Amino acid sequence: MTGERIYLYDTTLRDGAQTQDVDFSVADKIAIAKDLDRLGIDYVEGGWPGANPTDDQFFAEAPELARATFTAFGMTRRPGRSAANDPQLTALAQSRAKAVCMVGKSWDFHVDVALNIPREENLDLIRDSIAALHAAKGEALFDAEHFFDGYKRNPAYAVSCIRAAFEAGARWIVLCDTNGGTLPHEVDAIVREVVETHGIPGDRLGIHCHNDTENAVANSLAAVRAGARMIQGTINGLGERCGNANLVSLIPTLMLKMGYETGIRREDLPLLTQLSRAFDDRLNRAPNRHAPYVGASAFAHKGGLHVSAVEKDPSSYEHVAPEAVGNRRQIVMSDQAGRSNLIVRLRDIGMAVDAKDGRLAGLLDLVKQRDSDGYAYDTAEASFELLVRRELGEVPRFFELLRFHVTDERRYNAVGKLVVESEAVVRVRVGDAVRMEVADGNGPVHALDVAMRKALEPAYPALAKVSLSDYRVRILAAKEGTGAMPRVLIRSARTDGTEWSTLGVSTNIIEASMEALVDSYTYALMKGDAKPV
Amino acid sequence: MTGERIYLYDTTLRDGAQTQDVDFSVADKIAIAKDLDRLGIDYVEGGWPGANPTDDQFFAEAPELARATFTAFGMTRRPGRSAANDPQLTALAQSRAKAVCMVGKSWDFHVDVALNIPREENLDLIRDSIAALHAAKGEALFDAEHFFDGYKRNPAYAVSCIRAAFEAGARWIVLCDTNGGTLPHEVDAIVREVVETHGIPGDRLGIHCHNDTENAVANSLAAVRAGARMIQGTINGLGERCGNANLVSLIPTLMLKMGYETGIRREDLPLLTQLSRAFDDRLNRAPNRHAPYVGASAFAHKGGLHVSAVEKDPSSYEHVAPEAVGNRRQIVMSDQAGRSNLIVRLRDIGMAVDAKDGRLAGLLDLVKQRDSDGYAYDTAEASFELLVRRELGEVPRFFELLRFHVTDERRYNAVGKLVVESEAVVRVRVGDAVRMEVADGNGPVHALDVAMRKALEPAYPALAKVSLSDYRVRILAAKEGTGAMPRVLIRSARTDGTEWSTLGVSTNIIEASMEALVDSYTYALMKGDAKPV
Repeated sequence: MTGERIYLYDTTLRDGAQTQDVDFSVADKIAIAKDLDRLGIDYVEGGWPGANPTDDQFFAEAPELARATFTAFGMTRRPGRSAANDPQLTALAQSRAKAVCMVGKSWDFHVDVALNIPREENLDLIRDSIAALHAAKGEALFDAEHFFDGYKRNPAYAVSCIRAAFEAGARWIVLCDTNGGTLPHEVDAIVREVVETHGIPGDRLGIHCHNDTENAVANSLAAVRAGARMIQGTINGLGERCGNANLVSLIPTLMLKMGYETGIRREDLPLLTQLSRAFDDRLNRAPNRHAPYVGASAFAHKGGLHVSAVEKDPSSYEHVAPEAVGNRRQIVMSDQAGRSNLIVRLRDIGMAVDAKDGRLAGLLDLVKQRDSDGYAYDTAEASFELLVRRELGEVPRFFELLRFHVTDERRYNAVGKLVVESEAVVRVRVGDAVRMEVADGNGPVHALDVAMRKALEPAYPALAKVSLSDYRVRILAAKEGTGAMPRVLIRSARTDGTEWSTLGVSTNIIEASMEALVDSYTYALMKGDAKPV
Repeated sequence: MTGERIYLYDTTLRDGAQTQDVDFSVADKIAIAKDLDRLGIDYVEGGWPGANPTDDQFFAEAPELARATFTAFGMTRRPGRSAANDPQLTALAQSRAKAVCMVGKSWDFHVDVALNIPREENLDLIRDSIAALHAAKGEALFDAEHFFDGYKRNPAYAVSCIRAAFEAGARWIVLCDTNGGTLPHEVDAIVREVVETHGIPGDRLGIHCHNDTENAVANSLAAVRAGARMIQGTINGLGERCGNANLVSLIPTLMLKMGYETGIRREDLPLLTQLSRAFDDRLNRAPNRHAPYVGASAFAHKGGLHVSAVEKDPSSYEHVAPEAVGNRRQIVMSDQAGRSNLIVRLRDIGMAVDAKDGRLAGLLDLVKQRDSDGYAYDTAEASFELLVRRELGEVPRFFELLRFHVTDERRYNAVGKLVVESEAVVRVRVGDAVRMEVADGNGPVHALDVAMRKALEPAYPALAKVSLSDYRVRILAAKEGTGAMPRVLIRSARTDGTEWSTLGVSTNIIEASMEALVDSYTYALMKGDAKPV
């Protein structure tokens, strides 16, 4: 237990953004940067100002971060141009970042072939760029691209590159395993040589690993044990090819097992599970149940003997306490275990139910049936609460949806343009009245939402404060004899900032959407203490 | 490069079968065992005879394996019973397995609390069981449960347990990190002590790791470097909680990077990618694109400058050759797409375009514009190819969609059940004829697909061989002045096994879906050399 400080540098918004299928909007970037700052990450790398319109806009609207250093990424100056005359360096210097991390070559082969300049000149590029940005920003970092591959072939040259950055004032020299092929024992040996033989102090060294051999986490830990004091990585190991080092796995290992301090307060460590899952949610992908520390199955135990041993002493079957990272133990398989699981979930939604309550068995059967039908209630707490309260007869009958139909039509509009327009008709019983309304929208779900609100808001004006903030569809694998099942997840927000998620599952995407919409309105009314008319 | 032999032990069918949501049939087990045998895995652990009906049946029908040792798993004998009198050991001895691996305690705490017997007696259980199965089968293995946790608390006792197995004739003593919390530097130190201080030879030691800190692969490698010569793991890292050590990642690292020999012939190593993907297919889950070595993105390259360097010398950006493991290089488009990127992409779809071709600039602008509109072409190769070929006038006009409308209606069906039914009407020009067709489906997209096929198949019967295999929707963040933008991705398959992805983007989900459908039909016709009527 060393108590030494490790600095955490998140590159989700830059290197992570290279991932196939990942496409952050400016709003995504702002929300993610704030989550990282709240957790206590030291550096949040926002992107590359000047590289694309998203990054330009993000840096123009740079988020206010309370603790993290907002950092820009860029490249050492171009050959044949002074640092002062390089528009890319100027953009970095003028950006609203508090620090700048610049990538440069440290493998002789890449200097020869990719840059095609004398090797001495590459040292000038590094020196000039670091000096210029150090002067402009007060904090410049050097990303030594391909450092490990370069060091294996030509250690003297690789070291001369990082020494140039060190002498020019780089706060951190980040040793990059760009191709991801270096193994932990190699990282250990090379970092030790850099510190002990070549005299670059460990508290100026960072590590940047990729997961091409499934060793990105181990390589990062090896570098830290060899002396490096900064780790670059991403949320959930996002990143091109096989991903970057996964900060979500590294953080608990560093803090709970190796005794290092980071910028994260120990009492904030439980934010980790939520941060990891919310991130996947934002990317519209199912969180990895098997993710170390934060996955839903990470602390799953099967029934029987094992469970009673876990109950006697959890530490005998768990390598850390799940609560320490904001996760929870899950007991699977036995009915008894399912029951105590359910009690915990009910407690989470504010329902104190006694373990001997006769209604538990029925609820458990219902939840199991719905789970097997594809209702993933862990992503939709509001629908879970409605399911339970409906079963217990605790949800007022605010309205009843009788019929609806939606038409989507491709036609020429009034100004002769080919458009697709959606029109929805709904028939809803509200109190004693049956209201029929029609609306159009820029899609069938939008049209249904507008029509439903026309029908409901006269009786329930509070709904005007509720809007849909996200809509997602995932297709569940087809069961025997049916078609594929769309699962629709809708996120709703009230003007007071509260948010909730509801879901619907059906072979018909429109019906699944309507189910999620109806749950959303009902939840809003129930939580807003509306009285049924 | 040592040339030393490492033995590979696959426990997918036993420890992997503990995974939540995984449920192998006997047919699955037989197919997987044969795949492992074909690859050259040394030991295939089939399960636990006597533990459940699937394993009983599987062992009764034990597959004929050409090279692998078919192995059964079990437990050391019960306290208070002789080995000869323990029905579980008898079942193991009588099973059709060629070797037996038995788990036993090596952590004093578990002997005290879980077994609740004197510690000396546990040594007897181990000794008797190994001796009995060694006599019965010729090969017995000992799985030392919780070895690392036990060794940290009471090294003398942990070692006495494995020494008992060693002296009773165990071919392998497998050191298990059962809770998965041990770190690579700890595995390294403990295995070295077991070999050097306690005198258990490395060629009798195996390692069994779990991925709870994302270090299962690194821990396995650390044990091998410390002297152990057998590794237990699973295909794709399947296993309870966070999974077991991933053999698919370990094998290429051992053989291509560390110079070890295994039972796998070098010329068979390219079977690995196919084995990994076929396994996910069997589990009905999408293969992990980002899996080390075998993922579809494992050798993906993005970004202009980078791609031109890859072209010059792939080894400068790839840690191993993708072909060595049966994978392939992939060049992806993105908003960083440069001209050289585009040229490579065009070459991938069979279009040889010279770097000086005057049409490149226009194509590049078009691709960038579409990217910024939300068309993520890296996930939809077919739509990318159509975009380019349409721009170059190379896509025949197979048909023209003139109008469509879809109605989704919630109503009571003929047997009085409330259902939502979708009905689509399409009007399509095919050659000189305008065809109008109507169809219903279990959702608006299904209905549209059926109606379109009714309109197209009379002229293009080849479309009957094409079906939709996946449908996904993601909502892109709203741009200024518009609503949210659904992006629809459709995956299609032909009966000959070829697959392709197409996409559509629109404020209206139905229109986006129709765009992706039209691309899918067009691509199928173009690739099938259909002649426009």
